[in-house]
Amino acid sequence: MPVEAVRYAEGAIELIDQTRLPGEFVLKRIEDLEALCEAIRVLRVRGAPAIGVAAAYGFRLEAERFLREGGDKIEALRQRMLRTGETLAATRPTARNLFTTVERMTRVAQAPANHTRDLVARIARETDAIHAEDRALCEAIARHGAELLPQSARVLTHCNAGALATGGIGTALGVVYAAVRQGKVVQVFADETRPLLQGARLTAWELEKSGVPVTLLCDNAAASLLAQRDIDCVVVGADRIARNGDTANKIGTLAVAIAARRFAVPFYVAAPSTTFDLALSTGAEIPIEQRPAEEVAAGFGRATAPAGVAVFNPAFDVTPSDLIAAIIHEGGVVRPPYERTIPDSLAQLNVEDPLARARSSPAAEE
Amino acid sequence: MPVEAVRYAEGAIELIDQTRLPGEFVLKRIEDLEALCEAIRVLRVRGAPAIGVAAAYGFRLEAERFLREGGDKIEALRQRMLRTGETLAATRPTARNLFTTVERMTRVAQAPANHTRDLVARIARETDAIHAEDRALCEAIARHGAELLPQSARVLTHCNAGALATGGIGTALGVVYAAVRQGKVVQVFADETRPLLQGARLTAWELEKSGVPVTLLCDNAAASLLAQRDIDCVVVGADRIARNGDTANKIGTLAVAIAARRFAVPFYVAAPSTTFDLALSTGAEIPIEQRPAEEVAAGFGRATAPAGVAVFNPAFDVTPSDLIAAIIHEGGVVRPPYERTIPDSLAQLNVEDPLARARSSPAAEE
Repeated sequence: MPVEAVRYAEGAIELIDQTRLPGEFVLKRIEDLEALCEAIRVLRVRGAPAIGVAAAYGFRLEAERFLREGGDKIEALRQRMLRTGETLAATRPTARNLFTTVERMTRVAQAPANHTRDLVARIARETDAIHAEDRALCEAIARHGAELLPQSARVLTHCNAGALATGGIGTALGVVYAAVRQGKVVQVFADETRPLLQGARLTAWELEKSGVPVTLLCDNAAASLLAQRDIDCVVVGADRIARNGDTANKIGTLAVAIAARRFAVPFYVAAPSTTFDLALSTGAEIPIEQRPAEEVAAGFGRATAPAGVAVFNPAFDVTPSDLIAAIIHEGGVVRPPYERTIPDSLAQLNVEDPLARARSSPAAEE
Repeated sequence: MPVEAVRYAEGAIELIDQTRLPGEFVLKRIEDLEALCEAIRVLRVRGAPAIGVAAAYGFRLEAERFLREGGDKIEALRQRMLRTGETLAATRPTARNLFTTVERMTRVAQAPANHTRDLVARIARETDAIHAEDRALCEAIARHGAELLPQSARVLTHCNAGALATGGIGTALGVVYAAVRQGKVVQVFADETRPLLQGARLTAWELEKSGVPVTLLCDNAAASLLAQRDIDCVVVGADRIARNGDTANKIGTLAVAIAARRFAVPFYVAAPSTTFDLALSTGAEIPIEQRPAEEVAAGFGRATAPAGVAVFNPAFDVTPSDLIAAIIHEGGVVRPPYERTIPDSLAQLNVEDPLARARSSPAAEE
């Protein structure tokens, strides 16, 4: 069954180094904050939820190291946690879970405590909770989403919203894994996802590793595939969702959504409720990270374009909500009109206890 | 100004070796038929019109060599020209212009003549005519297309329909070059065009070399660029156009056309009249070549996907004509309803004399 992208073991974070896939399966051991930030920046760990879980463990690394180095002043630990949060928050601008984790861990670090050791233990427990919640969120999303797939399903996906992108079985691919567990026959079509080829390197890899049939295609062939009218639905993840349902996700998602609409194929977004940002009224307010030209111009280890060519390389695009047939979160399946259904469905969740929320989600579906 | 993909100079063919681009600019000097066939086979020269012109010069090479070697029997020269045609025709199976050239040169070689020297001169003149016609076709298409561009234009293109693909200034990129000559300020956005990256390797290179500002993007970022609403139009080439205007072109063209429609950006096709196939009533009748999995899964000398993964890799897609704002050929700009305007506009062309047709094209525009 699905692989594990991030775990904490023996005072270190272990990551599947996603920059080495699919050629090599390398477990990268991360022992300090600098290495973690580097890993986030260069995408050894990627996917908003996986980054959120890894970032939580970053606080734990630093807190446990503080103890090992003989630190005993609570105020010093708190300062270190604040700096840890600032450092982590500066790694990547778009992933919402990163900021949620930073806020949450910072809050725990500032709570009253008698001893540094107690505070470190509380920090450690909080990281375990964040990871467990993410696993439970994936399971709940997957269960709801799997209901949308027919008994024999051909699913198109973009980028990697799988086990490699989360602390659990994934969101978009979680839907696939859950449908397979329910006995459905699922075939996945995976866009390669230029420039960093997460679809080719990661989605194809983790699906094959899990025994799910997968067919790879260039991003620009998805429209042609949809035009053949034998794709049942598109399922993708999300990096950030505005109050009206506009969804930021990996560059290329918008093109798939537009083509899916043209050929009347339902387009689904699967993401935890933490991906929603109700402070943003529309997707126009979502900041889009521009990435280095080299990813496009020299992406396969050799120059594929003239030296110094100008490059347009946004990391994400925004899919307008009118193209989205449904958004699946841990509370259930949300359909238009999103302006009403998104706030309502989120309000039904117990926002104080996301783990309980994920566990009780079948009830929330109604 | 635009580069020259093919030329004949001092008894040899000079090609820009496109397999060395964009890393190196190598002019390959071709002095015999074997070298020319190799160049066509390994894509040192590519693009149907450019192959057609290069093949014509192949006959001239062989004919002039025949004279230099002291040949004086007309029948021997004719036999040599027949063998040249057979050898060239066996290099690549699809390029239509190659076969047109072979038929035409063979016909000239079989025409009555008193001396070998006269026949060689006639062969040389025919190669010049073939090249001149291709240049004139490009110029006529370019001139018509350039009228569609505003004074300051931002143009999105896909694949390479440029000087490197033809004997002249190209079709889609010819439109850009002509607009620049008219004093317009043109900025081009070039899709990299997976899997073989003709946009990154060739389009970006030839535009830079010609001093036209170019920005490279991944195919999947085109929708995002179009969503920003500061692209004035899309211009692409075509491999085959059905009677109703449905257009087969490089894979990925369809996705761009669908996105352009969504964001109300006009989508233009630029191609010579020889690209139309009136025997096909719609694009559904255009056969689509499937290409090897390795182009996607292991392009550029390293594996980018798990070994043996299934791959969907069509070479072309078909853009339905309802997405095409206009088709530009050497006779002018054709707009819907294409069922009527395409046959009418082609009937107005003097199909017996393509060179005269191209020269008189401003009149044909009305």
